[in-house]
Amino acid sequence: MDYFNCISLNEAERLILHGFSGLQAEIEQVTLPEALGHILAEDIISKEDLPPFSRSTVDGFAVRSMDTFGAGEGVPALLNIAGEVAMGEQALFSVQPGQAVAIATGGMLPVGADAVVMLEYTERPDNSTLLVVRTVAPGENVIVKGEDISAGHCILRQGRRILPQDIGALAACGYSIVPVRRKPVVVIISTGDEVVDVPCSPVNGQIRDINLYTLSAMLEDAGCIVKRYGIVKDNYEDLLTALSQSILHCNVVVVSGGSSVGARDHTVRAIQELGKKDVLFHGVAVKPGKPTIFGRIGNVPVFGLPGHPVAAMTVCRQIVTPAIQSFLGQAVGEVYTIPARMTRSMASVPGRDDYIRVRLIRKSDGYWAEPILGKSGLISTMCTASGIVHISADKGGLYSEEIVEVEIITGK
Amino acid sequence: MDYFNCISLNEAERLILHGFSGLQAEIEQVTLPEALGHILAEDIISKEDLPPFSRSTVDGFAVRSMDTFGAGEGVPALLNIAGEVAMGEQALFSVQPGQAVAIATGGMLPVGADAVVMLEYTERPDNSTLLVVRTVAPGENVIVKGEDISAGHCILRQGRRILPQDIGALAACGYSIVPVRRKPVVVIISTGDEVVDVPCSPVNGQIRDINLYTLSAMLEDAGCIVKRYGIVKDNYEDLLTALSQSILHCNVVVVSGGSSVGARDHTVRAIQELGKKDVLFHGVAVKPGKPTIFGRIGNVPVFGLPGHPVAAMTVCRQIVTPAIQSFLGQAVGEVYTIPARMTRSMASVPGRDDYIRVRLIRKSDGYWAEPILGKSGLISTMCTASGIVHISADKGGLYSEEIVEVEIITGK
Repeated sequence: MDYFNCISLNEAERLILHGFSGLQAEIEQVTLPEALGHILAEDIISKEDLPPFSRSTVDGFAVRSMDTFGAGEGVPALLNIAGEVAMGEQALFSVQPGQAVAIATGGMLPVGADAVVMLEYTERPDNSTLLVVRTVAPGENVIVKGEDISAGHCILRQGRRILPQDIGALAACGYSIVPVRRKPVVVIISTGDEVVDVPCSPVNGQIRDINLYTLSAMLEDAGCIVKRYGIVKDNYEDLLTALSQSILHCNVVVVSGGSSVGARDHTVRAIQELGKKDVLFHGVAVKPGKPTIFGRIGNVPVFGLPGHPVAAMTVCRQIVTPAIQSFLGQAVGEVYTIPARMTRSMASVPGRDDYIRVRLIRKSDGYWAEPILGKSGLISTMCTASGIVHISADKGGLYSEEIVEVEIITGK
Repeated sequence: MDYFNCISLNEAERLILHGFSGLQAEIEQVTLPEALGHILAEDIISKEDLPPFSRSTVDGFAVRSMDTFGAGEGVPALLNIAGEVAMGEQALFSVQPGQAVAIATGGMLPVGADAVVMLEYTERPDNSTLLVVRTVAPGENVIVKGEDISAGHCILRQGRRILPQDIGALAACGYSIVPVRRKPVVVIISTGDEVVDVPCSPVNGQIRDINLYTLSAMLEDAGCIVKRYGIVKDNYEDLLTALSQSILHCNVVVVSGGSSVGARDHTVRAIQELGKKDVLFHGVAVKPGKPTIFGRIGNVPVFGLPGHPVAAMTVCRQIVTPAIQSFLGQAVGEVYTIPARMTRSMASVPGRDDYIRVRLIRKSDGYWAEPILGKSGLISTMCTASGIVHISADKGGLYSEEIVEVEIITGK
């Protein structure tokens, strides 16, 4: 009995890169608040110094620091109050030796001053006299011009997924419009004679569609705009129609189910027909997720995912999402994983990449990862998992108490 | 010189809980795809067994496992093919001793069968004869009725932030509509005579508004609907107007800036006036973030945040967001932090909770956390940080090489 020949995960990644060649998300301009979570399309270079002038970080008095040297509780420095810095305006006067100027947090440091004495270390016996009871060092309580970001400096690199703090840096530098990669549109097609949509009451032999919804949610989280095509029966003509319609309106198609080699598995043939034989692989040595297809119809890459819910989610996380990130030009950043010890050993098969679900348990000696056993058809095993552990193809398994890296899947 | 008296972070948390008493996000019904990221408002109990019938997990033949006992490559078991299970329909016949029924992945196991032989372990010399070359155990390649989720079982607990895998479990159990907590509406007001909006070119003494945008982004990430009121000058009457308008249209107000004790700090007085003195605290022993205010005007909690960008983000993360989560009834789950060693020692002050920014460095012996030094006015220090380390109030600092827990702030 022949069965599809699996390729390695590495080889699959190489073929996907090839299948996406010449394709990249377009650049679009969005408003600053909209930019959150998008992928930055260009390096952002500051045109200005930030702050654009030296500012006080406290409420107090701008002084020449030298005038406070030696001051203390018993020996206050005596200064003459020469005026007050108005907020949001240029400081018009300069601070002469022996003078102090009132300044609020964020105020512009007047010429001559090089430090600010906090209000609580001053006394004001009358309107024009200031007693300073503590020495300030040059630069103390001041952010100098350009200290945060200097003109010409690259604030953020292209390919970065824009975080709240990045929104802040962009705001500071005057980017009310931000060049980002347009979110890819992904169509998801569910297949299966036995599959019914969620609102339906399945009759005997039927089951509700899970993958349409889990894959949508995962791809939305990954920065895609998802269109749910719905459920297509296990019928070659119907799948052909669904695929030919979908590719007109999207960047990527994901077909759930119908990816194996049975009589009802039409995805490969449909891609071959519409793409004139452009199926790059069928079958990857991963568990769960072996019956995975990748092809291309014109300019639209198509993934065929296994029908088992955990397998579909695994392939979406490990294979589809990285492909989308690459299409978006997303920089490959460090993925922070949690080191944990295995509570038990897990056998694997060399030559195959395994992804196991684990529950993290915090003990006094650190985290422990407890494998969640269960077939890849069981969605409940995903809901009880804290994360995923990868057993790479060069390993035959994991030993009990071996330290592994857990990729967290529970979010905030 | 008097200055506000700080309370501890613990005490602040207690007062915030008190300030939110009687307030909780409403329950609303949303469609399943919309539920992603929302907080579940009720325990979800499955009304049905999942799967609702025993199913095959492979393409093959449903058999009585006993009939295959002893079968192997040289000694195949001989069975009679009695028919085929149609997908999505009830399996009408029962499997008698010595019989096999063709079945595809997901097909309903016919009565009598207790296992499925994979296609690749069978041969079919003619249409009615099946040779089985491997023994199958009872239950092999079958998901039995209720094995994933049994009727009456609680699938997901209220208070959970809904993840893609939860969307899958909800889909499986027929929840096309999901009871969730309505996202709170938060109004953000920026204050400061020196602050101009991002599209403006600041003139001398002015600076662009950062906090309006960072706080918006953080609170959106935390599941809020944010309304940006814009910038209000350091004028008591203007702030009073802004606050009295804002509280009509939101669940929570956040005022950025004007939270210290200077002549331009009107937030406390404005809350007292509109809330008839309901300021619960002013000043918290955290660094950065000391000048933080919490009060309540009618049914609307109001936070006053420091103007320095890093301080504002720190207070938003450590104080405002947990309050919002509690308002949403969000279950306090495990926060997964990355253990790392400090690259250098950091002094702190006992009695004060410090939050320092660190860059994580991966070395052969694990992660190291390198503190990023810089004033709380410098937004760039947030963009280079991988995470935050908390130095709790009972510590005087961190030692070099001490193991700390890093809360990651870089997302995906």
